[in-house]
Amino acid sequence: MVSRTGNGGTADDGSTRRRLMDAAIELFRNHSVAATSLQMISDELGFTKSAIYHHFRTRDELLGAIIEPIIDRVAALTEDAATHRTPRARADRMLAGYARLAVANRHLFPVFSGDPAVVDFLRGRPEWAAVVQRQFDLLAGADPGPGGQVRAAIVMAGVAGAVGLSFDGLDDDALLEELIADGRRTLGLRAARPRT
Amino acid sequence: MVSRTGNGGTADDGSTRRRLMDAAIELFRNHSVAATSLQMISDELGFTKSAIYHHFRTRDELLGAIIEPIIDRVAALTEDAATHRTPRARADRMLAGYARLAVANRHLFPVFSGDPAVVDFLRGRPEWAAVVQRQFDLLAGADPGPGGQVRAAIVMAGVAGAVGLSFDGLDDDALLEELIADGRRTLGLRAARPRT
Repeated sequence: MVSRTGNGGTADDGSTRRRLMDAAIELFRNHSVAATSLQMISDELGFTKSAIYHHFRTRDELLGAIIEPIIDRVAALTEDAATHRTPRARADRMLAGYARLAVANRHLFPVFSGDPAVVDFLRGRPEWAAVVQRQFDLLAGADPGPGGQVRAAIVMAGVAGAVGLSFDGLDDDALLEELIADGRRTLGLRAARPRT
Repeated sequence: MVSRTGNGGTADDGSTRRRLMDAAIELFRNHSVAATSLQMISDELGFTKSAIYHHFRTRDELLGAIIEPIIDRVAALTEDAATHRTPRARADRMLAGYARLAVANRHLFPVFSGDPAVVDFLRGRPEWAAVVQRQFDLLAGADPGPGGQVRAAIVMAGVAGAVGLSFDGLDDDALLEELIADGRRTLGLRAARPRT
């Protein structure tokens, strides 16, 4: 058992880092990234500013720590999708992976999709922006040409926005199944075989 | 012909008001609403702060002036859609109106969809939030139950996000046609008859 002191944040442990990131995500979500300062994040947790500086020296460093594991996961998903033989199979695989990742990160994906600071941040990290672009290209590849690009944009923004809402009587598994079925129709892919 | 003075913003005319709103939309889009101050908007246009106060005393007043005509239009679209006989026809009509409005406001819709300050603002204006809810319900009505709600959420966030991007070789008319066709598939509505 780990005991926690009331003035948390001074111990250099993973849980403090995680708490800071979770508090940041909530503030990003409620106020936008640009309107959230490290001071606000410290205040939220009752930390001193020096406690947060021990983990993150700038808001961008914190934002990067939040985005990085998602980008790593998307990169792995694009590599997996790329192994499939046809553009439609690749799009289908990419869709399933993206939807699963979005449902596993329901608080985070609306921020990723809608916050201009995330777009700015990715501009400064071309290798991360390239991962997002690869994902987009795989989804759009189901239908070469601008139509496929519009469909990919709808799916990426639509799934990211939808997971931020709650739907009566729909748990995460049912939501995921619905998102994949809807995304397939949007992209013009064959519908999944119904589960039996 | 109207001649404009170099120190704009002191004349109480519609064009100054419009310029302030347009500058605000660009800043909202690039920095989020919460991170944009009236001062930043004045600076952007080289206005004095008193010039902007002549038109808008708070950022929320300015945000309201930007949102109001869109809400009015959505309200009219929901009333028109509601006259149709079946839930699917109503969803179809709502989709076409929403997509047209989004394409006519390509800089604005990504802000509406993604910015937490807009959600907050609507919380303070229940009659406006009710209009957005009616739009959602009309789109979701194509398929009663949580599945239809997920589809409506994908369409609303997806279309709003997509119009913020540019697509090679797709003008506004072609984009609109594509969005309507894609939205119909997402919602599970019958595809439109191809144009001949």
